[in-house]
Amino acid sequence: MVDILHRVGVKAVTPEKVYEALTTVEGLAGWWTDDTKGDGDVGGVLQFRFPPVGGFDMRVVELLPPERVAWRVVDGPEEWVGTTIDWELRQSGDYTIVLFSHEGWREPGEFMHHCSTKWGSFLLSLKALLETGVGAPAPRDMEISDWH
Amino acid sequence: MVDILHRVGVKAVTPEKVYEALTTVEGLAGWWTDDTKGDGDVGGVLQFRFPPVGGFDMRVVELLPPERVAWRVVDGPEEWVGTTIDWELRQSGDYTIVLFSHEGWREPGEFMHHCSTKWGSFLLSLKALLETGVGAPAPRDMEISDWH
Repeated sequence: MVDILHRVGVKAVTPEKVYEALTTVEGLAGWWTDDTKGDGDVGGVLQFRFPPVGGFDMRVVELLPPERVAWRVVDGPEEWVGTTIDWELRQSGDYTIVLFSHEGWREPGEFMHHCSTKWGSFLLSLKALLETGVGAPAPRDMEISDWH
Repeated sequence: MVDILHRVGVKAVTPEKVYEALTTVEGLAGWWTDDTKGDGDVGGVLQFRFPPVGGFDMRVVELLPPERVAWRVVDGPEEWVGTTIDWELRQSGDYTIVLFSHEGWREPGEFMHHCSTKWGSFLLSLKALLETGVGAPAPRDMEISDWH
Protein backbone atom coordinates (compact mmCIF):
# COMPACT_ATOMS: atom_id res chain seq x y z
CA MET A 1 0.00 0.00 0.00
CA VAL A 2 1.29 3.39 -0.97
CA ASP A 3 0.00 6.85 -0.15
CA ILE A 4 -0.14 10.27 -1.73
CA LEU A 5 0.91 12.92 0.80
CA HIS A 6 0.89 16.71 0.61
CA ARG A 7 1.27 19.73 2.88
CA VAL A 8 0.38 23.35 2.20
CA GLY A 9 0.04 26.38 4.44
CA VAL A 10 -2.75 28.87 3.89
CA LYS A 11 -1.63 32.33 4.98
CA ALA A 12 -3.80 34.59 7.17
CA VAL A 13 -6.75 32.21 6.93
CA THR A 14 -8.29 30.40 9.91
CA PRO A 15 -8.79 26.61 10.15
CA GLU A 16 -12.55 27.33 10.22
CA LYS A 17 -12.39 28.91 6.75
CA VAL A 18 -10.33 26.03 5.33
CA TYR A 19 -12.73 23.54 6.91
CA GLU A 20 -15.63 25.32 5.20
CA ALA A 21 -13.89 25.00 1.81
CA LEU A 22 -13.61 21.23 2.41
CA THR A 23 -17.11 20.57 3.68
CA THR A 24 -19.55 22.72 1.70
CA VAL A 25 -20.56 22.27 -1.93
CA GLU A 26 -19.82 25.94 -2.61
CA GLY A 27 -16.39 25.73 -1.00
CA LEU A 28 -15.40 22.52 -2.81
CA ALA A 29 -16.60 23.92 -6.14
CA GLY A 30 -14.30 26.89 -5.62
CA TRP A 31 -11.07 24.89 -5.85
CA TRP A 32 -11.69 21.34 -7.14
CA THR A 33 -14.42 21.27 -9.75
CA ASP A 34 -17.30 23.53 -10.73
CA ASP A 35 -19.43 20.39 -11.03
CA THR A 36 -19.73 19.51 -7.33
CA LYS A 37 -22.99 18.27 -5.81
CA GLY A 38 -24.25 16.22 -2.91
CA ASP A 39 -24.39 16.06 0.85
CA GLY A 40 -21.37 17.07 2.90
CA ASP A 41 -22.63 15.71 6.26
CA VAL A 42 -21.21 12.55 7.84
CA GLY A 43 -22.65 9.59 5.92
CA GLY A 44 -23.54 11.77 2.94
CA VAL A 45 -22.05 11.40 -0.52
CA LEU A 46 -20.32 14.22 -2.41
CA GLN A 47 -20.22 13.96 -6.20
CA PHE A 48 -17.33 15.52 -8.08
CA ARG A 49 -17.47 15.51 -11.89
CA PHE A 50 -14.85 16.50 -14.46
CA PRO A 51 -16.67 16.56 -17.82
CA PRO A 52 -16.13 14.80 -20.11
CA VAL A 53 -13.94 12.27 -18.29
CA GLY A 54 -15.97 11.17 -15.27
CA GLY A 55 -15.36 11.85 -11.61
CA PHE A 56 -15.54 10.62 -8.05
CA ASP A 57 -18.19 9.93 -5.41
CA MET A 58 -16.93 10.37 -1.87
CA ARG A 59 -18.72 9.24 1.27
CA VAL A 60 -18.00 11.60 4.16
CA VAL A 61 -16.76 9.30 6.93
CA GLU A 62 -15.52 11.77 9.52
CA LEU A 63 -15.92 15.44 10.35
CA LEU A 64 -14.21 17.06 13.32
CA PRO A 65 -14.59 20.82 12.89
CA PRO A 66 -12.26 22.56 12.25
CA GLU A 67 -9.54 19.88 12.46
CA ARG A 68 -10.30 16.85 10.37
CA VAL A 69 -12.26 15.70 7.31
CA ALA A 70 -12.20 12.15 5.93
CA TRP A 71 -13.78 10.69 2.82
CA ARG A 72 -13.98 7.20 1.37
CA VAL A 73 -14.19 6.85 -2.42
CA VAL A 74 -17.35 4.89 -3.24
CA ASP A 75 -17.42 5.38 -7.02
CA GLY A 76 -14.98 6.48 -9.70
CA PRO A 77 -11.89 5.01 -11.37
CA GLU A 78 -11.20 1.44 -10.27
CA GLU A 79 -7.88 2.48 -8.69
CA TRP A 80 -9.70 4.99 -6.46
CA VAL A 81 -12.64 2.94 -5.21
CA GLY A 82 -12.08 1.97 -1.58
CA THR A 83 -9.25 4.43 -1.01
CA THR A 84 -9.53 7.11 1.66
CA ILE A 85 -8.74 10.80 1.67
CA ASP A 86 -7.87 12.55 4.91
CA TRP A 87 -7.48 16.22 5.64
CA GLU A 88 -5.93 17.49 8.87
CA LEU A 89 -5.97 21.18 9.69
CA ARG A 90 -4.19 23.12 12.39
CA GLN A 91 -3.14 26.65 13.12
CA SER A 92 0.58 27.43 13.11
CA GLY A 93 1.41 31.09 13.58
CA ASP A 94 -0.23 33.05 10.80
CA TYR A 95 -0.94 29.92 8.72
CA THR A 96 -3.46 27.13 8.63
CA ILE A 97 -1.47 23.99 7.85
CA VAL A 98 -3.24 21.43 5.67
CA LEU A 99 -1.93 17.86 5.85
CA PHE A 100 -3.43 15.74 3.08
CA SER A 101 -3.22 12.00 2.52
CA HIS A 102 -4.84 9.78 -0.08
CA GLU A 103 -4.32 6.27 1.26
CA GLY A 104 -4.96 2.69 0.24
CA TRP A 105 -3.63 2.64 -3.32
CA ARG A 106 -2.95 -0.94 -4.31
CA GLU A 107 -0.22 -0.21 -6.89
CA PRO A 108 2.14 2.74 -7.41
CA GLY A 109 1.28 2.87 -11.12
CA GLU A 110 1.55 5.72 -13.58
CA PHE A 111 -2.01 6.89 -12.82
CA MET A 112 -1.07 7.25 -9.15
CA HIS A 113 1.96 9.36 -10.12
CA HIS A 114 -0.42 11.58 -12.11
CA CYS A 115 -2.95 11.85 -9.29
CA SER A 116 -0.20 12.83 -6.84
CA THR A 117 0.89 15.80 -8.95
CA LYS A 118 -2.70 16.71 -9.73
CA TRP A 119 -3.67 16.67 -6.02
CA GLY A 120 -0.71 18.99 -5.36
CA SER A 121 -1.96 21.43 -7.97
CA PHE A 122 -5.50 21.32 -6.53
CA LEU A 123 -4.14 22.00 -3.02
CA LEU A 124 -2.47 25.09 -4.45
CA SER A 125 -5.87 25.98 -5.95
CA LEU A 126 -7.43 25.61 -2.47
CA LYS A 127 -4.71 27.87 -1.03
CA ALA A 128 -5.27 30.45 -3.79
CA LEU A 129 -9.04 30.40 -3.31
CA LEU A 130 -8.70 31.11 0.40
CA GLU A 131 -5.90 33.67 0.15
CA THR A 132 -7.07 35.57 -2.94
CA GLY A 133 -10.71 34.59 -3.50
CA VAL A 134 -9.89 32.88 -6.82
CA GLY A 135 -9.14 29.17 -7.11
CA ALA A 136 -8.52 27.09 -10.23
CA PRO A 137 -11.21 24.39 -10.16
CA ALA A 138 -11.95 22.24 -13.23
CA PRO A 139 -12.48 23.11 -16.02
CA ARG A 140 -10.08 26.01 -15.31
CA ASP A 141 -7.57 23.74 -13.56
CA MET A 142 -3.86 23.72 -14.32
CA GLU A 143 -2.98 21.38 -17.18
CA ILE A 144 -0.06 19.25 -16.02
CA SER A 145 0.20 16.73 -18.88
CA ASP A 146 -1.49 14.89 -21.78
CA TRP A 147 -3.84 13.46 -19.11
CA HIS A 148 -4.87 17.02 -18.21
CA MET B 1 9.24 2.72 3.20
CA VAL B 2 7.14 5.27 1.41
CA ASP B 3 7.74 7.10 -1.86
CA ILE B 4 6.97 10.46 -3.38
CA LEU B 5 5.62 9.98 -6.92
CA HIS B 6 4.80 12.51 -9.63
CA ARG B 7 3.99 12.61 -13.35
CA VAL B 8 4.01 15.59 -15.69
CA GLY B 9 3.92 15.88 -19.48
CA VAL B 10 6.03 18.47 -21.25
CA LYS B 11 4.31 19.58 -24.44
CA ALA B 12 6.13 19.83 -27.77
CA VAL B 13 9.50 19.15 -26.14
CA THR B 14 11.69 16.10 -26.88
CA PRO B 15 13.02 13.67 -24.25
CA GLU B 16 16.51 14.89 -25.23
CA LYS B 17 15.67 18.44 -24.12
CA VAL B 18 14.16 17.26 -20.84
CA TYR B 19 17.19 15.03 -20.24
CA GLU B 20 19.45 18.05 -20.74
CA ALA B 21 17.49 20.01 -18.10
CA LEU B 22 18.09 17.15 -15.64
CA THR B 23 21.77 16.53 -16.34
CA THR B 24 23.46 19.90 -16.87
CA VAL B 25 24.16 22.56 -14.26
CA GLU B 26 22.59 25.21 -16.50
CA GLY B 27 19.46 23.11 -17.05
CA LEU B 28 19.03 22.25 -13.37
CA ALA B 29 19.56 25.89 -12.36
CA GLY B 30 16.71 26.84 -14.69
CA TRP B 31 14.00 25.07 -12.72
CA TRP B 32 15.25 23.95 -9.28
CA THR B 33 17.65 26.45 -7.78
CA ASP B 34 19.85 29.22 -9.12
CA ASP B 35 22.57 27.94 -6.80
CA THR B 36 23.43 24.67 -8.58
CA LYS B 37 27.01 23.48 -8.97
CA GLY B 38 28.96 20.29 -9.47
CA ASP B 39 29.53 17.41 -11.82
CA GLY B 40 26.56 15.84 -13.63
CA ASP B 41 28.42 12.77 -14.93
CA VAL B 42 27.89 9.30 -13.46
CA GLY B 43 29.74 9.18 -10.15
CA GLY B 44 29.83 12.98 -9.90
CA VAL B 45 28.11 15.02 -7.20
CA LEU B 46 25.64 17.81 -7.89
CA GLN B 47 25.22 20.47 -5.21
CA PHE B 48 21.90 22.23 -4.87
CA ARG B 49 21.64 25.10 -2.38
CA PHE B 50 18.64 27.09 -1.18
CA PRO B 51 20.04 30.02 0.80
CA PRO B 52 19.67 30.52 3.68
CA VAL B 53 18.26 27.10 4.59
CA GLY B 54 20.79 24.60 3.24
CA GLY B 55 20.41 22.15 0.40
CA PHE B 56 21.21 18.74 -1.03
CA ASP B 57 24.21 16.92 -2.50
CA MET B 58 23.23 14.25 -5.04
CA ARG B 59 25.53 11.59 -6.42
CA VAL B 60 24.62 10.76 -10.01
CA VAL B 61 24.20 6.96 -9.99
CA GLU B 62 22.71 6.30 -13.42
CA LEU B 63 22.39 8.07 -16.74
CA LEU B 64 20.68 6.49 -19.73
CA PRO B 65 20.18 9.25 -22.30
CA PRO B 66 17.46 10.30 -22.95
CA GLU B 67 15.43 7.90 -20.81
CA ARG B 68 16.63 7.73 -17.26
CA VAL B 69 18.47 9.71 -14.58
CA ALA B 70 19.05 8.51 -11.01
CA TRP B 71 20.58 10.27 -8.03
CA ARG B 72 21.40 9.23 -4.48
CA VAL B 73 21.29 11.87 -1.76
CA VAL B 74 24.70 11.95 -0.08
CA ASP B 75 24.29 15.10 2.04
CA GLY B 76 21.41 17.27 3.21
CA PRO B 77 18.55 16.94 5.71
CA GLU B 78 18.76 13.72 7.73
CA GLU B 79 15.47 12.47 6.23
CA TRP B 80 16.90 12.77 2.71
CA VAL B 81 20.34 11.18 3.15
CA GLY B 82 20.39 7.73 1.55
CA THR B 83 17.16 8.23 -0.38
CA THR B 84 17.11 7.98 -4.18
CA ILE B 85 15.55 10.11 -6.87
CA ASP B 86 14.64 8.58 -10.21
CA TRP B 87 13.54 10.26 -13.40
CA GLU B 88 12.10 8.30 -16.31
CA LEU B 89 11.42 10.00 -19.62
CA ARG B 90 9.54 8.81 -22.66
CA GLN B 91 7.82 10.26 -25.68
CA SER B 92 4.03 9.94 -25.88
CA GLY B 93 2.47 11.70 -28.84
CA ASP B 94 3.37 15.37 -28.65
CA TYR B 95 4.52 15.13 -25.01
CA THR B 96 7.57 13.98 -23.12
CA ILE B 97 6.24 12.16 -20.08
CA VAL B 98 8.30 12.57 -16.89
CA LEU B 99 7.83 9.92 -14.20
CA PHE B 100 9.45 10.98 -10.96
CA SER B 101 10.02 9.02 -7.77
CA HIS B 102 11.80 9.93 -4.56
CA GLU B 103 12.20 6.63 -2.76
CA GLY B 104 13.50 5.29 0.51
CA TRP B 105 11.86 7.62 3.02
CA ARG B 106 11.86 5.97 6.42
CA GLU B 107 8.81 7.79 7.82
CA PRO B 108 5.82 9.50 6.19
CA GLY B 109 6.24 12.53 8.44
CA GLU B 110 5.14 16.11 7.96
CA PHE B 111 8.41 17.04 6.23
CA MET B 112 7.79 14.31 3.64
CA HIS B 113 4.29 15.71 3.01
CA HIS B 114 5.92 19.11 2.40
CA CYS B 115 8.60 17.71 0.10
CA SER B 116 5.96 15.90 -1.96
CA THR B 117 4.05 19.11 -2.69
CA LYS B 118 7.26 21.04 -3.23
CA TRP B 119 8.58 18.45 -5.73
CA GLY B 120 5.27 18.75 -7.60
CA SER B 121 5.70 22.51 -7.84
CA PHE B 122 9.29 22.13 -9.05
CA LEU B 123 8.19 19.63 -11.73
CA LEU B 124 5.75 22.30 -12.92
CA SER B 125 8.71 24.70 -12.95
CA LEU B 126 10.65 22.20 -15.11
CA LYS B 127 7.67 21.95 -17.46
CA ALA B 128 7.36 25.75 -17.65
CA LEU B 129 11.10 26.18 -18.31
CA LEU B 130 10.99 23.78 -21.24
CA GLU B 131 7.69 24.96 -22.71
CA THR B 132 8.09 28.71 -22.22
CA GLY B 133 11.78 29.31 -21.48
CA VAL B 134 11.03 30.54 -17.95
CA GLY B 135 11.07 28.27 -14.90
CA ALA B 136 10.61 29.17 -11.24
CA PRO B 137 13.82 28.01 -9.52
CA ALA B 138 14.68 29.12 -5.98
CA PRO B 139 14.74 31.89 -4.86
CA ARG B 140 11.85 32.64 -7.26
CA ASP B 141 10.09 29.35 -6.46
CA MET B 142 6.42 29.10 -5.59
CA GLU B 143 5.76 29.59 -1.86
CA ILE B 144 3.51 26.75 -0.73
CA SER B 145 3.53 27.27 3.05
CA ASP B 146 5.27 28.65 6.15
CA TRP B 147 8.14 26.27 5.25
CA HIS B 148 8.45 28.04 1.89
